[in-house]
Amino acid sequence: MTRPRPLVPREDPADSVRVVGEFGVIARVLARAGAAPAAEVGPGDDAAVLRTPDGRVVATTDVLVEGRHFRRDWSSAEDIGHKAAAANLADVAAMGGVTTALLVGLACPPDTSTAWLEGVATGLAEECAPLGAAVVGGDTVSAAPDSGAVVLSVTALGDLGGRVPVLRSGARPGDVLALAGRLGWSACGLAVLRRGFTSPVAAVAAHRRPAPPYAAGPAAADAGATAMCDVSDGLLADAGHLAHDSGVVVDLDRTALVQATLEPPGPLQQVAAALGGDPLAWVLTGGEDHALIATFPPDAALPDGWTTIGAVREAPEGPAVLVEGEPGEIVAEALGAEGTGHVHFR
Amino acid sequence: MTRPRPLVPREDPADSVRVVGEFGVIARVLARAGAAPAAEVGPGDDAAVLRTPDGRVVATTDVLVEGRHFRRDWSSAEDIGHKAAAANLADVAAMGGVTTALLVGLACPPDTSTAWLEGVATGLAEECAPLGAAVVGGDTVSAAPDSGAVVLSVTALGDLGGRVPVLRSGARPGDVLALAGRLGWSACGLAVLRRGFTSPVAAVAAHRRPAPPYAAGPAAADAGATAMCDVSDGLLADAGHLAHDSGVVVDLDRTALVQATLEPPGPLQQVAAALGGDPLAWVLTGGEDHALIATFPPDAALPDGWTTIGAVREAPEGPAVLVEGEPGEIVAEALGAEGTGHVHFR
Repeated sequence: MTRPRPLVPREDPADSVRVVGEFGVIARVLARAGAAPAAEVGPGDDAAVLRTPDGRVVATTDVLVEGRHFRRDWSSAEDIGHKAAAANLADVAAMGGVTTALLVGLACPPDTSTAWLEGVATGLAEECAPLGAAVVGGDTVSAAPDSGAVVLSVTALGDLGGRVPVLRSGARPGDVLALAGRLGWSACGLAVLRRGFTSPVAAVAAHRRPAPPYAAGPAAADAGATAMCDVSDGLLADAGHLAHDSGVVVDLDRTALVQATLEPPGPLQQVAAALGGDPLAWVLTGGEDHALIATFPPDAALPDGWTTIGAVREAPEGPAVLVEGEPGEIVAEALGAEGTGHVHFR
Repeated sequence: MTRPRPLVPREDPADSVRVVGEFGVIARVLARAGAAPAAEVGPGDDAAVLRTPDGRVVATTDVLVEGRHFRRDWSSAEDIGHKAAAANLADVAAMGGVTTALLVGLACPPDTSTAWLEGVATGLAEECAPLGAAVVGGDTVSAAPDSGAVVLSVTALGDLGGRVPVLRSGARPGDVLALAGRLGWSACGLAVLRRGFTSPVAAVAAHRRPAPPYAAGPAAADAGATAMCDVSDGLLADAGHLAHDSGVVVDLDRTALVQATLEPPGPLQQVAAALGGDPLAWVLTGGEDHALIATFPPDAALPDGWTTIGAVREAPEGPAVLVEGEPGEIVAEALGAEGTGHVHFR
C-alpha cells in the first residue's frame, strides 16, 4: 500500500488526544464500548474479569497499522473499528468459538482527534454487539515520536461452548474442503481504491468492512469439521497453512470455486473487466475478507452457508495447494495475480 | 523521553525481518516462547485455547512504544521483553490473579533484526516462566511506513483461583493502605540514564527490568484486601485512582513511607545526592516499578511483603491523596518532583 496522505488536519484539533489527555480519551472511548454480558469486571480497573463457562477461553491478537492495513482517507474511523474487530472475531470463529470480549491496545499520535478514536470504538462495538461481545479493556498510549501513524492491536477472547477446538492440523485425505463467506471482494475493493475510484460500492464496502461468516465457525465444529482456518492472507496462502499443518494436499475444484465465489456475476467481474484482469485471481489470492475454509469427513452434511470447493488428498510429495492438479501459484500467476498471498513485510 | 538515537544498524541485517519474512520471524520467536501448562492449544493456529479452571479469566493489555516506553540503546531486547511482560503480570496480580498466558502484538520496521526480536521473546518468556505462564499467540506486522519504531502490545490472561477480584473501588474509611514492592527505583534509573550514566547499577537495572511483587497480589486478596492496584503511573497518581474510584481520601504516612521505601539507604539516596534532589520525589511520583498498593480492613493481618504506609479516610470534600494532611502534589512539587504522575502524551 502506498504511503497515506495525511487525512485529518494535523494541527492539534481542540479535541486532540494531547489536549484531552489519556484519561479523557479513555473515558470517551469507553462510552462507546457497549457492555459484555460475560464481563464480571469491565473496563477501568487494572484488568477485566470475564466469565468462561466452558472452562476454557479462546484468545487471539491482530495488529493493524495505519498505512499498512488501513488508510484514513480510504476508510472511516468506524470502518477501521469494524475491520479490526472482524479480523479477530473471524479467528475465534475459525476455532469453533464465539467472541465474548475484546481488549484494545492503541498507539496514536498526540494530534489524533478523539472524535476519530470514538469512531473506531463505535466500529469495534458495532461489529461485536451481534455476538454479545464488547470491549472490556485496553491501553492508549502515544505513538512513537517519529510516527504519525495509528497502531491498533486487538485481542479477542471467546467461548467454545463445549466444542472441541478445530485446528488447522486435522484435515485427512478423503475429506472435502468447504468454504463459507466471500473471497476476493476486499482485494477487488482495494484495487478500486488504489486507482482512485470509489465504486462499485459493494466492493469498496467489502474492503472497508469485511463481513465474515462468524456463525459458520461453530456450526462447522458442530458438524464435525476436521480442520478450519480463516482466510486472512488469501485462499492459496491459508489453504497452504492448512495443508502444511495437516500434511496433506488440498486440491481446489475450479468449477466449484467459481460457482461458490463468482456466481451470480457481480462487482468482481465488473472491476476485472474494467481493469483487464481475471476475477478468479482475487478469489485465489485476495486476503482480508475473512471467509472460513474447513475440511469435513466425506459423509458429513455441510451446515448452512458452507459449499464444497475442493478435496483433501494424500501428500506423497509434500503438502501443497493445487487447482485441479496444478500448483495454485502457477494458476494464480497465469491469471495475473499480483502475489500469491498477503505479504506483511515490504 | 527524548527521541531515541537509532541503535541497531539500520541497513537491513542478514537476519532482518524483511529478509526472513513474517513466518520465519514467528517461527524463531516462538522457539523462545516456552510452554504454558494452561494452554490446550498453543501458538500457530488461528487462536490459542487456554484452560480457565476458575470459570473466569483475568485479561489486561499494555502497549509499549519505542522512544516512549523504552529505548534500544538503554535497554537490551531481553530487558524490553521482561519489562513488557512485567507491566501486564502486575496488572493481573493487582486483581488477585496469577498470569497463565500472554499474547503479543508486534509492529516492527522491516529492518529489525530477528535476533533482537528473539531477545524480546526470551525476555517475555523469562519473566513469565516463574509463574508458569508463556506466550500462546500473537501477531507480527510491519511498522508504519513512516516509522522506525517498534510497538509492542502485550495481553496477559490470568486465573483468580477462586478469589474475589480486588477492585480499585472497594477502599473504605478506616482501612489501612499498604505497599508491596519498590517505588521510585525505575524513575531513579531513568534519571541516571538520561544523564548518560549507567550506574548505580541497581537503579538502572530496576528501570530496565522492574521486579513487581507478583505473589503479593493473590496474597492480599486472600487476606481480605478491600481495594488494590499496581503502581504504574506513580504512587500519587495510582493512589489517586484508588481514592477516586472508592470515593475516599488516602492519607500517606510520610514516616512509614520513607521507612518502607528508602531504608536502609541505597541508590535512590546516592543518585538524589549527586543530582541535588530528594529521593522521596521519586517515591511519590515515579512510575513503572509496578509495586502494588492495597487497602485492608483495620484488623486484617497483612501478608508477608506488605507494609502499612497510610490510612483511608472519609472524603467530605471529595477524593484526594494527602501526605499527612497536605495535598500530595504540593508535597511532591516542594520536593522537586518533575511531574506528579507518569504522563503518556507529550
